[in-house]
Amino acid sequence: MKAEIITIGDEILIGQIVDTNSAWIAEQFNLHGIEIYQITSVHDDKNHILEALKNAEEKVDLVILTGGLGPTKDDITKNVLCEYFNTKLVFHEPTFEHIKQRFKNRNIDLNKLNHDQALVPENCTVIPNKAGTAPGMWFEKNDTILVSVPGVPFEMKNLVESEILPRLENNGKAKAIYHKTVLTQGLPESMLAQMIEKWEDALPENIKLAYLPNPMAVRLRLSAIGKDKELLKKQVETEIEKLQKIIPENIFGYDNETLAGVIGEILKKKGKTLAIAESCTGGFISHLITSVAGSSEWYKGGVTAYSNEMKQNLLDVSKEVLDVNGAVSEQAVRKMAEGVSRKLNAHFSVATSGIAGPTGGTKEKPVGTVWIAVAGPDKTVAEKFVFGDNRERNIIRSSQTALQMLRRLVLNS
Amino acid sequence: MKAEIITIGDEILIGQIVDTNSAWIAEQFNLHGIEIYQITSVHDDKNHILEALKNAEEKVDLVILTGGLGPTKDDITKNVLCEYFNTKLVFHEPTFEHIKQRFKNRNIDLNKLNHDQALVPENCTVIPNKAGTAPGMWFEKNDTILVSVPGVPFEMKNLVESEILPRLENNGKAKAIYHKTVLTQGLPESMLAQMIEKWEDALPENIKLAYLPNPMAVRLRLSAIGKDKELLKKQVETEIEKLQKIIPENIFGYDNETLAGVIGEILKKKGKTLAIAESCTGGFISHLITSVAGSSEWYKGGVTAYSNEMKQNLLDVSKEVLDVNGAVSEQAVRKMAEGVSRKLNAHFSVATSGIAGPTGGTKEKPVGTVWIAVAGPDKTVAEKFVFGDNRERNIIRSSQTALQMLRRLVLNS
Repeated sequence: MKAEIITIGDEILIGQIVDTNSAWIAEQFNLHGIEIYQITSVHDDKNHILEALKNAEEKVDLVILTGGLGPTKDDITKNVLCEYFNTKLVFHEPTFEHIKQRFKNRNIDLNKLNHDQALVPENCTVIPNKAGTAPGMWFEKNDTILVSVPGVPFEMKNLVESEILPRLENNGKAKAIYHKTVLTQGLPESMLAQMIEKWEDALPENIKLAYLPNPMAVRLRLSAIGKDKELLKKQVETEIEKLQKIIPENIFGYDNETLAGVIGEILKKKGKTLAIAESCTGGFISHLITSVAGSSEWYKGGVTAYSNEMKQNLLDVSKEVLDVNGAVSEQAVRKMAEGVSRKLNAHFSVATSGIAGPTGGTKEKPVGTVWIAVAGPDKTVAEKFVFGDNRERNIIRSSQTALQMLRRLVLNS
Repeated sequence: MKAEIITIGDEILIGQIVDTNSAWIAEQFNLHGIEIYQITSVHDDKNHILEALKNAEEKVDLVILTGGLGPTKDDITKNVLCEYFNTKLVFHEPTFEHIKQRFKNRNIDLNKLNHDQALVPENCTVIPNKAGTAPGMWFEKNDTILVSVPGVPFEMKNLVESEILPRLENNGKAKAIYHKTVLTQGLPESMLAQMIEKWEDALPENIKLAYLPNPMAVRLRLSAIGKDKELLKKQVETEIEKLQKIIPENIFGYDNETLAGVIGEILKKKGKTLAIAESCTGGFISHLITSVAGSSEWYKGGVTAYSNEMKQNLLDVSKEVLDVNGAVSEQAVRKMAEGVSRKLNAHFSVATSGIAGPTGGTKEKPVGTVWIAVAGPDKTVAEKFVFGDNRERNIIRSSQTALQMLRRLVLNS
């Protein structure tokens, strides 16, 4: 099946907004076995929209229109569709009831424009929009399906996910799909790919694997495509079980979990607490930890010791260690971790000391050199890393690596 | 002048990447007085590209093609352009020299594919691509201009900004333009708009104002459009001088500056230092400060005191203050700011204590309640805010507000 996406609205053509809708729709449709032939962005202009519809109709089996469904005068999609299908607008009672209810919940009075949002072309099937006021509309003409949805991204996504794709699946026009994303840590993408190559090659043909790297993790998204969602789910779970046996240390979570959140869950379960001593990461690890709701239950606090003076006064790192080994050293970072645990009376701690850049590097310790230590009740582990020369990336990678080391220690203690 | 953007490449149509290029080009072209009639995304397919070119040629005066210029087999734009213009590829010596030089700088050997990147359609004007290997190409046919640029965003932007737009300006096809962005703090967008309404209404007709709010500041971008760039620059500077008189306290910088960076500049100039005590912001202020390169010169460090125990032990906030007033109180936050200044021996400090949410609120202190204090050599200032119920946004808004208060204190001390 071939589809075309037509986005309607001046805001894309004047560059006021980036068209993220089309990429999202394209990805979803492709996964469901529907090829996107073309994406076309046109103005809120009757003739322009009609022309785009006619061009699309000749080439594809499915047209998805986004935008132009708002209550204001410049939103003309419904009128243009009436002209295109040679029909007229009619009042749709259930849509009006839905709009009234939404306004009532917010204590806002209805006006004429809101009333008109319940008008739809007579030949369409109305698709309820739970996330907004403008309904989706489904048309069929000869062998072509035309679907019109609002341009507001979360309304569009909700309609496509919960209504459009299931209808296409039921009509046999789209395949059923089940996604699950595996979150990994500690292996660069290329090494991970090598380690799981055989597993990947042996995946059933209907399961696709996508690498989704971001600065905090390498994520593996499995998408199973077929007919029966329950079966697909089982299939994916079976493959993930095999993967767990290959990289048991590296999988830290699934879908929308975060490393900081996972560490928090383990600490909570064990009844243990955490403290942080940061130098080069400058508070970013503490920020990641405190981004987890409820972290005050297991996070005692942190110290950003940017100066040697602070490392001595607040973390009890001795002047001798700093003078002999320097602040960026195994000895210093171990003392920082142990010091912050002791001072804050925490069971676990993590400490960083390094040269984030762009200046401050030496021949022995170039920009990107970072020492990280994690300390628990039984032991302290320290490791040296050499990242790149970009300050921002060095801060992110150091923080991520520190949380990886911390998770491993907390898990195995 | 009317233009169409045609993006070439399967990666957009399978939803692998979001087409940010088109929005950027659309914005730039619109500012230069060129209207974008349509944006069309097509596959790496000869007939599809030819069809899109023919459709565009009938409707617009300028076609900008992005993508399909890489060295691999699926990049077919150059061959398609030869067919479209009925011409052939020829070897372009200066482009080859440029490619050779780039490879030499990286110590990589050239191969046949790199050699072929120096082939261009015979009828084009080659536009050197300083940021990459594939050159831009400029064609003219009857009254239509066709420009082909690489799809890699920073290469495309560089070519459009430094070569394409200046050429269009010189040909009288595009207007000259000068941008400057004013960064403001401390006024919500609606209040700012009210305060500067008269100034905005009195702006010369050729200067456009755009509000660009982001979580850290409300930015006002002035774009002057005309013929002579030097004159436009003077015009913009004159208007900004008038604006400074209306909101002297609220403008903290221009273009790509940050609040943390501006605070650092002031501290450096005055030879003063900073310390931070965070509770609800959890390290985020420290992260913003240490994102500024060279901040170790004036930033002593910070304490994230998530527990009362830490507020007592590390910041000398008395148990009495915490028991009587609570951690989220004017008294506590003042003591935190003064305590961290004293402990870390810093001239200035900032402290936060609040309820980020989603839980932990009470009737008297609902989620979003935040106390912020800034302390300097002469005084401590504290203020209470009530933000929303979203944890992430509360952390960002509290941090931003704290930096705003800090800038004002540092500036006036």
